Amino acid sequence: MNRRAGSVGGSQMPPNTLWLYGTHAVEAALANSGRRKHRLICTSKAAESLQIPEDATKSDLKAEILERADIDQICGEDAVHQGLALLVSPLKDIHVEDLINLVQDHTLSTIVVLDQATDPRNIGAVMRSARAFGADGIIIQDRNSPPETGSMAKAASGALETIPLVRVTNLARALWALKDAGYWVSGLDGYAEISIEDANISEKSVIVLGAEGTGLRRLTRETCDQTVKIPINPEAESLNLSNAAAIALYALTRRSQP
Amino acid sequence: MNRRAGSVGGSQMPPNTLWLYGTHAVEAALANSGRRKHRLICTSKAAESLQIPEDATKSDLKAEILERADIDQICGEDAVHQGLALLVSPLKDIHVEDLINLVQDHTLSTIVVLDQATDPRNIGAVMRSARAFGADGIIIQDRNSPPETGSMAKAASGALETIPLVRVTNLARALWALKDAGYWVSGLDGYAEISIEDANISEKSVIVLGAEGTGLRRLTRETCDQTVKIPINPEAESLNLSNAAAIALYALTRRSQP
Repeated sequence: MNRRAGSVGGSQMPPNTLWLYGTHAVEAALANSGRRKHRLICTSKAAESLQIPEDATKSDLKAEILERADIDQICGEDAVHQGLALLVSPLKDIHVEDLINLVQDHTLSTIVVLDQATDPRNIGAVMRSARAFGADGIIIQDRNSPPETGSMAKAASGALETIPLVRVTNLARALWALKDAGYWVSGLDGYAEISIEDANISEKSVIVLGAEGTGLRRLTRETCDQTVKIPINPEAESLNLSNAAAIALYALTRRSQP
Repeated sequence: MNRRAGSVGGSQMPPNTLWLYGTHAVEAALANSGRRKHRLICTSKAAESLQIPEDATKSDLKAEILERADIDQICGEDAVHQGLALLVSPLKDIHVEDLINLVQDHTLSTIVVLDQATDPRNIGAVMRSARAFGADGIIIQDRNSPPETGSMAKAASGALETIPLVRVTNLARALWALKDAGYWVSGLDGYAEISIEDANISEKSVIVLGAEGTGLRRLTRETCDQTVKIPINPEAESLNLSNAAAIALYALTRRSQP
């Protein structure tokens, strides 16, 4: 739960800010010079092991020591904040063309596209796996997708600060832009004939994942160069979104090791 | 959130029962003849597509139609219940020897051991992947592990009814029982020298996962026949538990396709 409003010690939250919480999420945000930081709060215990990078201290950011109960109240009851929270502005929007320019020199490049992701924890978990397997970015449809939240950052375990998250109005158009830039687009589909490990995966690859249950939307599927499947027990339900993405990223990583 | 107490229509919850919710979790429980079912509640919309198996109707289980708000109240605010909930008794305990007997005729057998799993959603997600990749069971340490809950069943997406979940007092002893039964035990460890896809994986395999961050405990590690890693970007944080399990299960499945 990430509160959009709240006051501690009499100070109101500035507009369009959010609380990040948890050790990895906060430390990664502190280390990210592109992230605007407003307040850092922590328990005296968390303060002992906290390293504030020089960049952040230059901007006068100081750790305010609070009781754990106060941080509970700010982050929400269910948040595993580990005694640490940081009030930030959301990251700047990044466009698909920016992402393409950013990674154009990468010999190997993987970009993950989520066709219908609505759960911030799922998106965060995919970012964490993307970071683990060296993917270059995540693209989601802007409509129905959640804003940056504390729970997304927590699930991303720091990767929110390093993996570009691109929001697009039109997913098919974004896929075409990637294709024009030399990417080969594979859609994950339980009914595909080819397994992901047998598929022809190019050095610049996009992997597209649909919603659990309903899968890829028709236009998204039609824009893919191929569909591939993760072979599972036919009697089983589908995989959950972040697990399917993790397996796909792992399988794609194998292509760099002939 | 799974309430242990609650009353609707004046009737109290019987002791030692829990609410399962969500389409897949409830339908799988209805189809499980080994599951004691007490009350089935649903919205009139959910009732339209609901199939109650003959087995369950024999036991006089009838769907009670309620308003969505009532089901919200019973399952907890955050529960994505899809208009469907089932009051059940927990499944019967199963011992590691039972599991070994149950699967002794399987030529290929995979069992997942979670060394320090405390999050019911993580355990449920691992059960879902275990079902997807044909694993035979999950073993967890009883101490500190959560009981069966609605959120675990929801994350398992039906697999709670089909994948045996074994709780043991002593994990090392359970691993030795499996070794005596012909299983080869691989522990997942980021510092291992061999990658999971290069490892010697026997037809009867146990894969052991530790806690995120701290990994396998010493005694657990020492009981493993080998340690293997999922190769990830060294600058990244670890994978989350359910994603690591999904990748390991996927990689182990490959051993059946030489």
